[in-house]
Amino acid sequence: MILAELARLIKADLIGQETADVSRVQPFENAGEGDVTLASDAGYLERISESQATAIIVSASVAGYRGNLLVARDAKLAFARAIAVLHKRDYQPIGVSGDVIVGEGTDLGNDLSIYPRVTVGREVIIGDRVTLQPGVVVGDRCHIGDDTILHANVTIYRDCEIGRRVVIHAGTVVGGDGFGFVPDENGHQVKLLQLGRVRIEDDCEIGANCAIDRGGFGDTVLRRGVKLDNLIQIGHNCEIGEDTVVAALAGFSGGTKVGRGCVVAGQVGTRQHVSIGDGATLTGKTAITKNVKAGAVVAGMPAQDYNAWRRSQVLYSKLPEMADRLKRLEKIVEDLIQASEKKS
Amino acid sequence: MILAELARLIKADLIGQETADVSRVQPFENAGEGDVTLASDAGYLERISESQATAIIVSASVAGYRGNLLVARDAKLAFARAIAVLHKRDYQPIGVSGDVIVGEGTDLGNDLSIYPRVTVGREVIIGDRVTLQPGVVVGDRCHIGDDTILHANVTIYRDCEIGRRVVIHAGTVVGGDGFGFVPDENGHQVKLLQLGRVRIEDDCEIGANCAIDRGGFGDTVLRRGVKLDNLIQIGHNCEIGEDTVVAALAGFSGGTKVGRGCVVAGQVGTRQHVSIGDGATLTGKTAITKNVKAGAVVAGMPAQDYNAWRRSQVLYSKLPEMADRLKRLEKIVEDLIQASEKKS
Amino acid sequence: MILAELARLIKADLIGQETADVSRVQPFENAGEGDVTLASDAGYLERISESQATAIIVSASVAGYRGNLLVARDAKLAFARAIAVLHKRDYQPIGVSGDVIVGEGTDLGNDLSIYPRVTVGREVIIGDRVTLQPGVVVGDRCHIGDDTILHANVTIYRDCEIGRRVVIHAGTVVGGDGFGFVPDENGHQVKLLQLGRVRIEDDCEIGANCAIDRGGFGDTVLRRGVKLDNLIQIGHNCEIGEDTVVAALAGFSGGTKVGRGCVVAGQVGTRQHVSIGDGATLTGKTAITKNVKAGAVVAGMPAQDYNAWRRSQVLYSKLPEMADRLKRLEKIVEDLIQASEKKS
Repeated sequence: MILAELARLIKADLIGQETADVSRVQPFENAGEGDVTLASDAGYLERISESQATAIIVSASVAGYRGNLLVARDAKLAFARAIAVLHKRDYQPIGVSGDVIVGEGTDLGNDLSIYPRVTVGREVIIGDRVTLQPGVVVGDRCHIGDDTILHANVTIYRDCEIGRRVVIHAGTVVGGDGFGFVPDENGHQVKLLQLGRVRIEDDCEIGANCAIDRGGFGDTVLRRGVKLDNLIQIGHNCEIGEDTVVAALAGFSGGTKVGRGCVVAGQVGTRQHVSIGDGATLTGKTAITKNVKAGAVVAGMPAQDYNAWRRSQVLYSKLPEMADRLKRLEKIVEDLIQASEKKS
Repeated sequence: MILAELARLIKADLIGQETADVSRVQPFENAGEGDVTLASDAGYLERISESQATAIIVSASVAGYRGNLLVARDAKLAFARAIAVLHKRDYQPIGVSGDVIVGEGTDLGNDLSIYPRVTVGREVIIGDRVTLQPGVVVGDRCHIGDDTILHANVTIYRDCEIGRRVVIHAGTVVGGDGFGFVPDENGHQVKLLQLGRVRIEDDCEIGANCAIDRGGFGDTVLRRGVKLDNLIQIGHNCEIGEDTVVAALAGFSGGTKVGRGCVVAGQVGTRQHVSIGDGATLTGKTAITKNVKAGAVVAGMPAQDYNAWRRSQVLYSKLPEMADRLKRLEKIVEDLIQASEKKS
Repeated sequence: MILAELARLIKADLIGQETADVSRVQPFENAGEGDVTLASDAGYLERISESQATAIIVSASVAGYRGNLLVARDAKLAFARAIAVLHKRDYQPIGVSGDVIVGEGTDLGNDLSIYPRVTVGREVIIGDRVTLQPGVVVGDRCHIGDDTILHANVTIYRDCEIGRRVVIHAGTVVGGDGFGFVPDENGHQVKLLQLGRVRIEDDCEIGANCAIDRGGFGDTVLRRGVKLDNLIQIGHNCEIGEDTVVAALAGFSGGTKVGRGCVVAGQVGTRQHVSIGDGATLTGKTAITKNVKAGAVVAGMPAQDYNAWRRSQVLYSKLPEMADRLKRLEKIVEDLIQASEKKS
């Protein structure tokens, strides 16, 4: 591909040769002839003249640099697009394996890639260009949207809806029962049957070995464009807002509502039925015990405003010093009192 | 079903029409003609006259309400029972798939539901009315009790015992090796072979993608009625007591003993070989580093009494203020000393 | 096996009968005739004369004890070796199941144990004496080294390299996409395609239901002898050093470098791109937000030196007392000031 074309596709301005050829993206250290790379921070910009790359994506033009630059306000975004343009392979259907097991009344779309060892239940609707890797199990009455990919050993329980262009990585379980029990007179746990479903909207991506429970009544919902990392727990009746990203090992208790465009870091946990406003940032390991406002940045156990938490955290590490100062003050004040008592 | 019959089955007192028909349970907002619902808190009780439900489960009679009430001291328990009565489907065996692979010497019970793609090892005993979903793998010499359900892609390693009426959700692994290594003279980790088993007693339910390790010597045991949420780690030789409930992403290190009727919240972790007394409550994210007494409620990292932790936690958020007050005091005392020195 | 032979194999000194027969290892409480056991701490040493074991492994000779002793400086290591000597079964190939599905150009080694329901992609290289349990899925162009065991329902994505004598427990996913997204102008998340691989070197052991992501560019690497417990997240481009052990539910963000011989406890989390020096110890639930020096022992959220954290932690639990003392001091000083004002 020539640079002028790449620039157009990644929405960057080209400073340099329009007809130079590029064929792949490489990290800064490795990029050479025919490669595009990224110089996103000061460290790389200082060393930009060392690069052998045919083109470098930057966020502003670089004085004195003679090579080809692709200038985009958000250089990392342009880089992500360049990788997609040069490395994403067109979908090629492999067809439907003779080994597939499909239940009655199930409707299969066109141009599928269904690998061996796939099991699909009854009255399922599978869209066009869907990929089901080996070991995938899809329960009765599920809908799987066009262009969706379920990786190996994914389990979808009955009655779930998966949108279009969704990717679910290996081992993830969608639609298991929510965790609802009530102790009876003898302390035995009586199950609250889980009658709801899971709905995963278009363009979501879900990592490996996650668990997304079905609703008790009503549905657990992942809105359009949600991105989940690995080993994430989504409890029953959670709703995760559009374009929200969640890092590994986070867990949302039943009924948690997360707004759109939130950033949830690793190992965060939430209490049941809390609401997180749009655009909030929950930093790593935070324990969310009450509602979080839109745009807030929170940290701690339980969560508080990030900056307030940071101040407390710094003082936490100074507690031994504070304790010493307190003790010294007590001694001094004691001496003062004794001195004043002697006088009087 | 008529209300009089439902009242009897859920152990509630009926105030209203014995012969009114109900067919399903619905949440308060959606309940209409033919539905049973729950009004469990003050908010719903205030709006009770708005409800179109045919019957409402409450914990005490409601003055002035003319509709049908089902009064039960524990309304949520009665609600759980009502869902089960009206929505639980009778078990219908689907038989044994021709696609199953079963090892030599294995004994299959009656009225089974064994789906395709199931693999069962040698000398296994499968009880009656057992359900094995696609992708289930059962190792040699396991016992699976009557009426037990293993969901899709569950793995049971060799020599494990699963009781009756147990439910194990998709992707969970039972009987993997416990994590035991000893470094040798060169720092290489030498494995402590894990010779024990896993025993899961009757009426346990285990969520999706959990990992329950076999014992080193002796067994890892889940006692009758234990309920585990998703993504939970049970280390080798743990013993979890009867009717204890554990929320998602909790992890028990090797040799942890948990009493009966405990409540373990999400992301809790325990040090090896600690004991948790009966009826203890471990709040979310708590780090258990030493034994916990029966009935205790603990929180924090490391765990301490919940109320003491709460007091410290409130003061933690006030550390900046405390630091300011300490500094001001030091200044005042310094001034006092100087003043008194001047005088003398 | 006679004791003299066992002593030689576990590198212990025998005090006692060379020709006594032993056939198994048992824990102290259960060991009897023909058994070897361990008395590793003072509690067991006090009761050593009660033991019916044929031989007891200890770290130093025991005055007055008349039974057979196996003395090794590191008794626990000798014990691990004794278990292996007496209980490890020789590998017996079961052959290749007729039910296996293998892609074109794949090369299978000798003396394999490939169970039914295994799916292997194209151009894969499977070494000798490899065990693939039911439900294993191996992607295109992977290499699986000699003597490696993949337990049931393990998924290996395309282009991954697994070394020799590696054990991967059930449900683990190797080679899923790293978690890399950049928001575009509309807040939609654009994927950073993940072009790298996973390399797992010789003698690693990985627990159940872990998730090990492929690199973005370049590889995610587990060095020789790494041991992972269950439910562990390894982000893209992490590198875990030789002989490092990691406990359950720990998570490493993208680009984390962990040195050799480290001990990482349960539920630890790391920020992206941090480095952990050789031999460091990260205690349970620690949040690693910056680099950790070789040999350091750290704790807390965020991590600090363990001993400093411990001091702060003790004072944290005394915050209510400190607050009271501060308040009392303020009152006393106030009184002093008033008294001195009255005088003057």
